[in-house]
Amino acid sequence: MTTNERPATRVALICGSRSDLETLEQGAALLAQLGVAHETRVISAHRAPRLLDRYVADAPGRGIRVFICAAGLAAHLAGAVAARTPYPVIGLPMPGGVSDGLDALLSTVQMPPGVPVATVGVGNARNAALLAAQILALADDGLAQRVAAFREDQTRRVEQDPANA
Amino acid sequence: MTTNERPATRVALICGSRSDLETLEQGAALLAQLGVAHETRVISAHRAPRLLDRYVADAPGRGIRVFICAAGLAAHLAGAVAARTPYPVIGLPMPGGVSDGLDALLSTVQMPPGVPVATVGVGNARNAALLAAQILALADDGLAQRVAAFREDQTRRVEQDPANA
Amino acid sequence: MTTNERPATRVALICGSRSDLETLEQGAALLAQLGVAHETRVISAHRAPRLLDRYVADAPGRGIRVFICAAGLAAHLAGAVAARTPYPVIGLPMPGGVSDGLDALLSTVQMPPGVPVATVGVGNARNAALLAAQILALADDGLAQRVAAFREDQTRRVEQDPANA
Amino acid sequence: MTTNERPATRVALICGSRSDLETLEQGAALLAQLGVAHETRVISAHRAPRLLDRYVADAPGRGIRVFICAAGLAAHLAGAVAARTPYPVIGLPMPGGVSDGLDALLSTVQMPPGVPVATVGVGNARNAALLAAQILALADDGLAQRVAAFREDQTRRVEQDPANA
Amino acid sequence: MTTNERPATRVALICGSRSDLETLEQGAALLAQLGVAHETRVISAHRAPRLLDRYVADAPGRGIRVFICAAGLAAHLAGAVAARTPYPVIGLPMPGGVSDGLDALLSTVQMPPGVPVATVGVGNARNAALLAAQILALADDGLAQRVAAFREDQTRRVEQDPANA
Amino acid sequence: MTTNERPATRVALICGSRSDLETLEQGAALLAQLGVAHETRVISAHRAPRLLDRYVADAPGRGIRVFICAAGLAAHLAGAVAARTPYPVIGLPMPGGVSDGLDALLSTVQMPPGVPVATVGVGNARNAALLAAQILALADDGLAQRVAAFREDQTRRVEQDPANA
Amino acid sequence: MTTNERPATRVALICGSRSDLETLEQGAALLAQLGVAHETRVISAHRAPRLLDRYVADAPGRGIRVFICAAGLAAHLAGAVAARTPYPVIGLPMPGGVSDGLDALLSTVQMPPGVPVATVGVGNARNAALLAAQILALADDGLAQRVAAFREDQTRRVEQDPANA
Amino acid sequence: MTTNERPATRVALICGSRSDLETLEQGAALLAQLGVAHETRVISAHRAPRLLDRYVADAPGRGIRVFICAAGLAAHLAGAVAARTPYPVIGLPMPGGVSDGLDALLSTVQMPPGVPVATVGVGNARNAALLAAQILALADDGLAQRVAAFREDQTRRVEQDPANA
Repeated sequence: MTTNERPATRVALICGSRSDLETLEQGAALLAQLGVAHETRVISAHRAPRLLDRYVADAPGRGIRVFICAAGLAAHLAGAVAARTPYPVIGLPMPGGVSDGLDALLSTVQMPPGVPVATVGVGNARNAALLAAQILALADDGLAQRVAAFREDQTRRVEQDPANA
Repeated sequence: MTTNERPATRVALICGSRSDLETLEQGAALLAQLGVAHETRVISAHRAPRLLDRYVADAPGRGIRVFICAAGLAAHLAGAVAARTPYPVIGLPMPGGVSDGLDALLSTVQMPPGVPVATVGVGNARNAALLAAQILALADDGLAQRVAAFREDQTRRVEQDPANA
Repeated sequence: MTTNERPATRVALICGSRSDLETLEQGAALLAQLGVAHETRVISAHRAPRLLDRYVADAPGRGIRVFICAAGLAAHLAGAVAARTPYPVIGLPMPGGVSDGLDALLSTVQMPPGVPVATVGVGNARNAALLAAQILALADDGLAQRVAAFREDQTRRVEQDPANA
Repeated sequence: MTTNERPATRVALICGSRSDLETLEQGAALLAQLGVAHETRVISAHRAPRLLDRYVADAPGRGIRVFICAAGLAAHLAGAVAARTPYPVIGLPMPGGVSDGLDALLSTVQMPPGVPVATVGVGNARNAALLAAQILALADDGLAQRVAAFREDQTRRVEQDPANA
Repeated sequence: MTTNERPATRVALICGSRSDLETLEQGAALLAQLGVAHETRVISAHRAPRLLDRYVADAPGRGIRVFICAAGLAAHLAGAVAARTPYPVIGLPMPGGVSDGLDALLSTVQMPPGVPVATVGVGNARNAALLAAQILALADDGLAQRVAAFREDQTRRVEQDPANA
Repeated sequence: MTTNERPATRVALICGSRSDLETLEQGAALLAQLGVAHETRVISAHRAPRLLDRYVADAPGRGIRVFICAAGLAAHLAGAVAARTPYPVIGLPMPGGVSDGLDALLSTVQMPPGVPVATVGVGNARNAALLAAQILALADDGLAQRVAAFREDQTRRVEQDPANA
Repeated sequence: MTTNERPATRVALICGSRSDLETLEQGAALLAQLGVAHETRVISAHRAPRLLDRYVADAPGRGIRVFICAAGLAAHLAGAVAARTPYPVIGLPMPGGVSDGLDALLSTVQMPPGVPVATVGVGNARNAALLAAQILALADDGLAQRVAAFREDQTRRVEQDPANA
Repeated sequence: MTTNERPATRVALICGSRSDLETLEQGAALLAQLGVAHETRVISAHRAPRLLDRYVADAPGRGIRVFICAAGLAAHLAGAVAARTPYPVIGLPMPGGVSDGLDALLSTVQMPPGVPVATVGVGNARNAALLAAQILALADDGLAQRVAAFREDQTRRVEQDPANA
């Protein structure tokens, strides 16, 4: 078997609306920095449920192993994906509705027993990406080293903050 | 064409969990009282998405024209049905999560543009049923009369309350 | 029978304040696009209760079958209309008060048993209009086709989003 | 003119539901203790709007000068009365909905400009009654003395609390 | 007795901070329009408790019969005044803290039994003023007529709204 | 001057209502355990403002250096004390109102600039007491040792939890 | 190297208080059912920070690759662990504080950029466990099959619900 | 013993992020005005936990007796410091997350029994500083006089407000 036949493990970043794309790309940028293959889509769970069905069904064949789903308001995207895949799904609630995103947060995190969504903070696309990398790093020593270096670097930047000199 | 070939217009009542069934049946009872044909199902949008797909696809053939969807927590059921049908979908948020059902309310009502859910109050199954009847009554004069009589009767009961004598 | 004798079925869009009118007109525009006759009014349930009484009483004679009521803060407009008509009333809570419209949402959706309001998301006038169209489409095959086409078109736009190419 | 021709100034206590009556009667008891004439009614603004109209229209003729309106959920009762009378209206939000009565509180207090409701704390019927008495006492020296005595008595009870001995 | 010996009944408008003064003056303007004598003060219950004590003690001697108290955050001003006077106290919660003034609203309205505050909507100084006028109008027929005319005028403006033509 | 002439430094525990006394006494018990002199009072800031004035004025003469103030609902007690003393005031919001004490929390913590209240968690009387002890320990080496021992003991109990064996 | 020298991959379940242990054990039971090795601890991030430090440092040596952290109120446990390990940390907010666990939810999920916590619903220990299993299944085909079977089984139970017959 | 051997008592001001520094410096400015020695640091409890450990361990040797900790979102900084020191810790929740800082407030104040954080209002750095000064003033008569003068001055400014002339 050649490496071509087995696609690289990768992360899918999906958002429910064009307006969420800019935030989502902050997560894509961090995945790129960490050397994690990924792809980005705009698929509304409500406006295009059949496309989402097909996308989630086909994604594993392209190597997708973790999904990051960004949505606002009654944010069903992460839950809808989690209902259709056994792979880990990371929910990224978006701000903009009631109480600066409380609606999206509750809609994403309060999943019923049996279908978890790994929810990160409101609008925090970089944490969604870093969490995806931490998950994939469990089976990828190179990535584990890059994640560790990233974490050490961010710690070092705090330690070297001029305010702490 | 015979009446057998064209099923009676009816309402589907769906809940996402067995534990919501008792509340939902208060709505079914009111539909029965108003002479509205209906059927009840327990289908989780998250644990059985394909069953929900099939159910929503097949429902119109059995005469379903309005859906009532009861769910708690990250309540996606109404939105998931609304994403798959052009018929009116009534969302019934269930209490029990954060702030006595605020999570279910926001998850049900804050739908994105293009896929509305007609949301009623937390746990208020009778209002979900009455709303369904009011909608169907627009094309059913007999039902319209029964709804009007129901409304008049409840007004009369207030007017005749012993406290107001 | 002439068209004069039986007015076209139509939707009333009412808002409680001049400042809500711009949002409400987004709903009127969608109704126009879907070919649904409608009329728009500014009637405060609190500042002009008798005008509202008369309006709701006279509306059916002009063919009104669905009411859309937009209000903010202690948003009573939809409930006040629902208390006076057996026709479906859609509540549109407006943002601007406590927690970006949580006050208007709760004031609109938490109706007591017996008088439902079909509530849509905060500030989401297009969903209020689409819900009205879905309701009227149950008895209007032409409208049903236009609603279906609208829904298919919005799905197609997601599927053809350049981000998904 | 005889006293029969001019009815005693009095307070109307109205609640929107039988279930609120027990709480409301705590307010009635305090009014009785303070020697304020009053009457109690159960009139839902949503289920019996015409009865409420008539009641508010007729009340001044019977001497009603202050209204206390208790309601829960989307609590419109106080606002509906305030829209129909120039007399002071005291709103008493009832607990039991979302967040222990936050829905009723916001629905009662967040009135639009031009139609104020004097809102007291959630479920605090005694404060509604005391506020009514304070208002009427502005034109009734005897009542003013009874209110002052009541206030002094409650202060004295704190001062003589055994814990402070 | 001359009118000099008995001061005109009047309303005190107090705010807890200079930054609330502009809002409060909207209430003062409405009182002026309605012909209600009034005076305005900036007295923080927390930064100047003794000045507040003296002010509340002296106010009745100058004819003050109703207090309007505007404060934000942990808004104690209305409650502090209510604790020191048997006259009606109107609480005006100011926006700007947590959840657009939810902190000030709860701090103002949730008074313990025995010391009511008549709370109006967040930042709604005109309603505070109108409520004060409605209260004083109970013993002032001229004011009652001006309040009634004000209310009728605002109703007429809605009825004559060009949108309703 | 003899030690008799200078009273021992002590903590005042005040609650606004009899119903808060049981919780407050959990704090008193911890102070006793830590050897901190203290006294307990029930003084409502709203029902007995003059008693509170006198108490706060006299307290330093009896050695009071820290105040713990427990109150629920529109919890003004801590702020009222803080307005009248330069000594540290610890606010203890009590549960029981809106959202399990959110009203008391916001009323206690959101003080305006210039008059801080050191707020602890809702209903957490032991933390109020421990904070008072930590503050007094800055000038009392014996107490500092007892606080340190208390903290070490609670850490040891976690370390020796059977679940961690 | 023998398999004895390399410990089995496992999940750590930690709770911040004895009172959370019963809930946490629902997660442990599900891990057991799915054949995932795990261990349970009671370690407060606040009362025993050094023990937590040591535990997190030593855990990888025993094969720990995923942490589940359950805590209520100001729930720092998950964040404290995430700050000390590059492995995935699942946060389980516990109910019982303000608004049925809203405090714990926000304290767990709203992590700053660079240190994600994968948060599940309030009190939903089974979802925390299932998420851990889904993560570990990415590198464990046997576990992946057991997770898939678990998910299919729960779907089948919905499909075979008597209510749907 | 020389003054070099015993460092001046001082306050540590720590914030979790560079973006909080500007607010924190308002507190530093007030400490300077009151003549309280202090130092400022930027140390994230999540990104640099070991640096925080070392800082808290070393701080007492430099005379630190009170910590002020400013953080937003899932604000763990104050709790993390409180877990590692017996000295008083003042928590300063920062706005910017859900509901204008409700997340940071709850994350800071809702500490478990045994580890209190003295929480001040959202973003209110001056109150954090003043509280620190009030605490240190218990053992520093000069500071006590400066605090008293500061408080009297702010009272005088209210009394001399032109609006009160």
